[in-house]
Amino acid sequence: MFQFNPTLEKDSHPIIEDDDLLIRLIDDARFAWVLVVPKVAGLTELHDLDNALFDKTFRVVRRLGRVLKTEFAAEKINTAAIGNMVSQLHVHVVARHKEDAVWPRPVWGAGDMVRLSAPEKTKRIQLIKDGLRLD
Amino acid sequence: MFQFNPTLEKDSHPIIEDDDLLIRLIDDARFAWVLVVPKVAGLTELHDLDNALFDKTFRVVRRLGRVLKTEFAAEKINTAAIGNMVSQLHVHVVARHKEDAVWPRPVWGAGDMVRLSAPEKTKRIQLIKDGLRLD
Repeated sequence: MFQFNPTLEKDSHPIIEDDDLLIRLIDDARFAWVLVVPKVAGLTELHDLDNALFDKTFRVVRRLGRVLKTEFAAEKINTAAIGNMVSQLHVHVVARHKEDAVWPRPVWGAGDMVRLSAPEKTKRIQLIKDGLRLD
Repeated sequence: MFQFNPTLEKDSHPIIEDDDLLIRLIDDARFAWVLVVPKVAGLTELHDLDNALFDKTFRVVRRLGRVLKTEFAAEKINTAAIGNMVSQLHVHVVARHKEDAVWPRPVWGAGDMVRLSAPEKTKRIQLIKDGLRLD
C-alpha cells in the first residue's frame, strides 16, 4: 500500500490529489517548485512505472511545465527524477530565473529552504490549480 | 534546421543517431551518463515537444534507465532535463552509486569531468548499444 514519504510530505503542501497521483507544492519561497508523485508502493525508478501511469504522470509534468513557465515568467523549467536522498519516485518541476538564489546551478541540495508565507502559499497553489484547469 | 549544441557535442560521444534523436555518452569516467537529444531546432522545453516525439524520447530514456541500472549495477538512476547552462533540450540519464564521486548530490556542476580512456569509452558504448538492442 502506497505511503507518501514523510520527508517529502513535511516539505510540501497539497495542490491536487487523485487515485494515481499527488501534486504537491514545495514549501520554498525561493522557487516555484512542484512535485508529481505516482501513488505506487515501493516504486523508485521511471522505467518501473507502467506505461499508462507513466503517460499520465508526464502529461501532468508537461502541463505543469507550461503553467509554471507562464505564470511565474520562468527563464527555464527544470524537470527531474533524482531520488538519491528519498528514493520514492517523485518528479520535480521547477521554475527557474536568472535572478534566482542559485542560478544556474540545480536547486537540489543548494542552500536552505525558505518556508513560504501563508498568503504566498495560497497564491501559488491557486495559480497552479487554475493553470492546470485551463490548459 | 537542427544543429547540435557545440558544448554538448564536445563533452560527449555518439552512441546511436536516427532521424529524430541523438543518443550520446558523456565523456566522464566518474559516471555512466547518457544524453538523449531530440533533433528539433530551437527546442528548449519538454512541454514544447510534440506528443509523438515526446513519447519516443521517453521510451528511449526509460530503456536507457533500465540498461544503465542493470549494466552498471546502479543504486539509482537520475533523469533530468535542466538546461540552465545549455538551453537546447537534452535529457540526462545517469547511473549513480553510493560510492561515486559526488553521491548523494546531483552530478550537474559537481566537480570536474574526468575524460574517458579510449577502451572505457568503447566498452561503455558497446554495453549501452547491446542493452538497447536486447531490451
